[in-house]
Amino acid sequence: MGMPMELNTLIVTKANEKRVEENLFVLKKDGYRLYPIEIPIDIRKTLDGESRGTARIKKVEWENNCTTITYELISLNSSN
Amino acid sequence: MGMPMELNTLIVTKANEKRVEENLFVLKKDGYRLYPIEIPIDIRKTLDGESRGTARIKKVEWENNCTTITYELISLNSSN
Amino acid sequence: MGMPMELNTLIVTKANEKRVEENLFVLKKDGYRLYPIEIPIDIRKTLDGESRGTARIKKVEWENNCTTITYELISLNSSN
Amino acid sequence: MGMPMELNTLIVTKANEKRVEENLFVLKKDGYRLYPIEIPIDIRKTLDGESRGTARIKKVEWENNCTTITYELISLNSSN
Repeated sequence: MGMPMELNTLIVTKANEKRVEENLFVLKKDGYRLYPIEIPIDIRKTLDGESRGTARIKKVEWENNCTTITYELISLNSSN
Repeated sequence: MGMPMELNTLIVTKANEKRVEENLFVLKKDGYRLYPIEIPIDIRKTLDGESRGTARIKKVEWENNCTTITYELISLNSSN
Repeated sequence: MGMPMELNTLIVTKANEKRVEENLFVLKKDGYRLYPIEIPIDIRKTLDGESRGTARIKKVEWENNCTTITYELISLNSSN
Repeated sequence: MGMPMELNTLIVTKANEKRVEENLFVLKKDGYRLYPIEIPIDIRKTLDGESRGTARIKKVEWENNCTTITYELISLNSSN
């Protein structure tokens, strides 16, 4: 038994995010992932890439072994 | 900082569940709660009450400091 | 990135527990596992086996990709 | 029921850390806190303070409603 999950401390988009509103994006990831919600976290395109900015997760959904997060981009790094 | 959450090992409905299909129910709880998903767990009406049966959570959503779970009732105790 | 972990809602001993005091046992498991602490949980010898009783976890340690729990046996099932 | 815990994505020392070896420190915090282990995380003296560097947690212990982490300081910010 036991439910496998993954603790995530940053958002890695791999360019799979979908914009739903001005600063609001939805991103679907494999597996059940635990993300901090309503807390500023770092956002990157790749795990080893540079930070692209800071986001705040507004919603987390777990279903069918996938995690869908809705996040608000709160600041962009100047180099992006 | 830090994100407060609660680890839950059983479902306590307090009679707030809403039936959406034959054996499928939706229940909304305060705060961010971590439940095992796709694993049989005990279901009760009150925390100190008797087990009413076994359920399997199909979906967990976190948003606005609430947790909404969708669960399938997989067996009922005979005394219920 | 991300840290793989497993949410556990019961203790499966596989007969690997070590008694340290009268009702106090230590059990080491692979990987990082999240257990409820100070809450009564079911204890079994095998995942599909019958419940052997109820335990209360007093301590959880994560190190070197292992989880060590210290638990108190609070009741034994009469059939054991 | 339910076990209250807090998801932490950085280490806030409040100057309570104790050095145990060259780069190894122990820090005790109230409550049950979930930290990523063996993953680089930001370390600060206060929540709103600047980053002091990066650490890697080697051990997490939960007991008596406290969390004790052992972490290795892997880099210091130049301004510190």
